[in-house]
Amino acid sequence: MQKIPILQMGNCLLVTIQVDLQDQIAMALQEDLATRIEATGARGVLIDISALEIVDSFIGRMLADISGVARVLDAKTVVVGMQPAVAITLVELGLSLEGVSTALNVERGMRLLNAAAQEDGLDSITG
Amino acid sequence: MQKIPILQMGNCLLVTIQVDLQDQIAMALQEDLATRIEATGARGVLIDISALEIVDSFIGRMLADISGVARVLDAKTVVVGMQPAVAITLVELGLSLEGVSTALNVERGMRLLNAAAQEDGLDSITG
Repeated sequence: MQKIPILQMGNCLLVTIQVDLQDQIAMALQEDLATRIEATGARGVLIDISALEIVDSFIGRMLADISGVARVLDAKTVVVGMQPAVAITLVELGLSLEGVSTALNVERGMRLLNAAAQEDGLDSITG
Repeated sequence: MQKIPILQMGNCLLVTIQVDLQDQIAMALQEDLATRIEATGARGVLIDISALEIVDSFIGRMLADISGVARVLDAKTVVVGMQPAVAITLVELGLSLEGVSTALNVERGMRLLNAAAQEDGLDSITG
């Protein structure tokens, strides 16, 4: 089974999604991320979806779930790199990605995470 | 055709390889990277291969090619995240990834790029 790699940079975990997110892969990713957040004490999770040409309700729910799990483990999730066409389709489908923060690209996502960390009186996330 | 996303972080481009690198995808990646290095003026390229369970001579040559193209465009390439089993197989096959720098993980790869930039009297790559 394909596994989606999780990269650590400072206190931040980075995931780029390139493959079709079937049930099993999505579940495995959620578990892996939870384990890695716990093991590394990461404060932020960046999920890059620039390779996805479709974000349907299943993927939307998965992103919300990951975000929820991360939040409970005291990490903030930002979804980055959404293609313009995907954003348009999401709105047309009436999906709002509730509870999921988004940013245009990885750099802005990191700035968002750093700003959130500063608000909490913590050090910069990206070290 | 599947496209491998290239993420920019400061003066550094990050690629995580998750899919089987067939000829077309590998060629497209090489072209995309060259274009992005030119467009962004990136000084470093990190290629994460932690998801690859096999690195054969084709992939080895592709990594060397990318590294060579990047070098001509004044960027340094570091391959990161190689699985131990992959390293063992590489040596057993007599492949040495000549001309390709490697590092254990993304963080060490970035440190390597920053150290190389400092030697050249440039600013930190990861900003």
